[in-house]
Amino acid sequence: MARCDELARVSADEGAITRVYLSPEHARVNRLAAEWMREAGMTARQDAAGNQLGLLPAADPDAPVLMLGSHLDTVIDAGRFDGIVGVLMAIEVVRLLRVEGEDGRSRSPFPFGIEVAAFSDEEGTRFGKALLGSSAVAGTWDDAWWDLTDADGTSLREAFREFGLDPGRIGEAARRPGELVGYLEAHIEQGPELHRRDESLAVVSSIASARRFQLVVEGEARHAGGTPYDMRRDALLGASEAALAVERICRGEHHIIGTVGQLEAFPGAVNVVPGEARFSLDLRGEFDERRDRAWGAIERELDEIMGRRGLRWHAREVHSAPAVFCAPLLQDVVREGIVAGTGAAEPATLFSPAGHDGMSLGAVAPVGMLFLRNPDGISHHPDEAVSAADVALGLRALAEAVAHLGAEPVA
Amino acid sequence: MARCDELARVSADEGAITRVYLSPEHARVNRLAAEWMREAGMTARQDAAGNQLGLLPAADPDAPVLMLGSHLDTVIDAGRFDGIVGVLMAIEVVRLLRVEGEDGRSRSPFPFGIEVAAFSDEEGTRFGKALLGSSAVAGTWDDAWWDLTDADGTSLREAFREFGLDPGRIGEAARRPGELVGYLEAHIEQGPELHRRDESLAVVSSIASARRFQLVVEGEARHAGGTPYDMRRDALLGASEAALAVERICRGEHHIIGTVGQLEAFPGAVNVVPGEARFSLDLRGEFDERRDRAWGAIERELDEIMGRRGLRWHAREVHSAPAVFCAPLLQDVVREGIVAGTGAAEPATLFSPAGHDGMSLGAVAPVGMLFLRNPDGISHHPDEAVSAADVALGLRALAEAVAHLGAEPVA
Repeated sequence: MARCDELARVSADEGAITRVYLSPEHARVNRLAAEWMREAGMTARQDAAGNQLGLLPAADPDAPVLMLGSHLDTVIDAGRFDGIVGVLMAIEVVRLLRVEGEDGRSRSPFPFGIEVAAFSDEEGTRFGKALLGSSAVAGTWDDAWWDLTDADGTSLREAFREFGLDPGRIGEAARRPGELVGYLEAHIEQGPELHRRDESLAVVSSIASARRFQLVVEGEARHAGGTPYDMRRDALLGASEAALAVERICRGEHHIIGTVGQLEAFPGAVNVVPGEARFSLDLRGEFDERRDRAWGAIERELDEIMGRRGLRWHAREVHSAPAVFCAPLLQDVVREGIVAGTGAAEPATLFSPAGHDGMSLGAVAPVGMLFLRNPDGISHHPDEAVSAADVALGLRALAEAVAHLGAEPVA
Repeated sequence: MARCDELARVSADEGAITRVYLSPEHARVNRLAAEWMREAGMTARQDAAGNQLGLLPAADPDAPVLMLGSHLDTVIDAGRFDGIVGVLMAIEVVRLLRVEGEDGRSRSPFPFGIEVAAFSDEEGTRFGKALLGSSAVAGTWDDAWWDLTDADGTSLREAFREFGLDPGRIGEAARRPGELVGYLEAHIEQGPELHRRDESLAVVSSIASARRFQLVVEGEARHAGGTPYDMRRDALLGASEAALAVERICRGEHHIIGTVGQLEAFPGAVNVVPGEARFSLDLRGEFDERRDRAWGAIERELDEIMGRRGLRWHAREVHSAPAVFCAPLLQDVVREGIVAGTGAAEPATLFSPAGHDGMSLGAVAPVGMLFLRNPDGISHHPDEAVSAADVALGLRALAEAVAHLGAEPVA
């Protein structure tokens, strides 16, 4: 918890926590994490994407590794636990589990090494694209991203160079399938389920499938005084009905969440009937198929609304990610870890509507996750919290989970 | 019609019509109008607010005057008839009615002079405040307006000086009660009623009562993934319901029109439940009391919506103007004018949901208005139209109306 506080002081904004990819704050927290990794017996290095890595090797230097981790970057005006607590727990688990090798150096007691990853960009705060750090590790980096720019117009390519990284070497960060036994992450829930159930920890079953759309409704801008209702083709009223339809449709489905976070009317004059409205839709679900079915229902509803109002509409999909399911073996060891660490008889199993680094890692390794109770589910906010008691329980559970995995035959 | 085209060429924007208060274009159209006023037998002058005036005196130089007119300023990318056609018709009516006095000069044949007013600002395009020109004539100028600024930060006071006007002399533009027999204006309808009825001209009964509000809805900004529906206090959904409630309530009332022209969500991120939404409401009605009753119904509905959704809301009233009723005598002479000019048996009587210079003049004189058919009701748009045939009928009707008023005893 003290280290969470120490990292919280590394911020671009005074009085708030803001730490974005390839910033001076990123470099500072990497140095702190490297120091703590070395204290825990690991060798530390920064990879080609600016991720900070620590390795506790197995006795066999060619053995694969289990990756534990999360991310150190934040949203703007963030809390102090999202991502961060998972990285610090991973370091602490290594300290708890390490043994002394014949050469006097710390090593993993298991048939796999343990590597701690402090990912450099999960939130996507600076360049608008999330999961940059873990995508590099998963080998799914897209060269089109080099031209993404931040609010100041600096491209990702330029930011790499300013940070001291070589864009040409990004491929060196990628892991090949087989190199990783798995990826295990502890994270605060970012939702209220554990708080409501009065439980500390949960096994994560999957990470949400997500699609994002930008929608445009077109009507006719006309004089607000002279245009009677039956002649209006008011794009804003169409968009308002659409936002309410998204809520109605998604509420009626299990584990489907749709959010309209942006909406604007044009021309945007007090006395002009809006001729155009633009809004965003963030659609998440536990299963791709159900999520797509919900989108189908929304499409049909929009056709009905806009047809009735004499409006046209179209949508542009700007993001799509399939659900990532946690590997059954890793769900099992996390569950056994929670049972052993907390004495809980039947730990909760939750799906994660929020995205996590595991979404990238799923491309190259089996993924498992452990959720920590997040009081009132407040996240991405200075009030974000987790209790020291739950972190202590989570540490024991995560260490037990790794030990259980160590007892399994490693492929 | 040719003069409408000639004025349309005086614009700040090439390929579009934009002519705002105290601009070089304002000065140019005033010079053109002055020339046409003199051709029609009037003496022309620009008043202390930049209004262009032309006078056809009565035989008795102390007689009051009947003011005919409209405005020459425009919205951005305007049509060529809103306001303009009323000024040009007024000039033409003077040319039709003038007689030669004993001194060889043109004079009014009636017991009142006729003054044509080409108001300098009705739309409020430049300084956000409408009816500046006619407010000066009505003696309702508010000194607080001097500090209004345009988009470039130029204050109204500075713009006066740049135009060659003295802000300290604004009071000289004001007319005293009794100086004006009345104010008569011809204007395109800015709505589709005459077009639908297949009639050319209408008597106007009143000019809409209007109130404008800026509304704020406050909820809680939260993570779009992690926040289940039952924990959301989504300000945008509250505002969406509100916009639809405005439509529902106003549609159900006779001659009440409510328009939400602006709406925005904050923080406005794709993946954040909106914690705040702001929107505008433009509310118009034929009668102040009914309009206020509609606002009361909207207030109650907003209380219900926001209460149900765990949201707070508040409204700030930014504009309020009472309905201005056309004087019965002036309604009568306009009706008689239409009957005499067009042979129509029962001319339509319409209320004007759009604002007009008569709203100001109502403070200092009885007001009458004549509407001309506006095909499809398109106004404040380059497609705005009126037919030459309707203008010809309107001219005869307006001249007849003045003649009928001349036959009435003047107070």
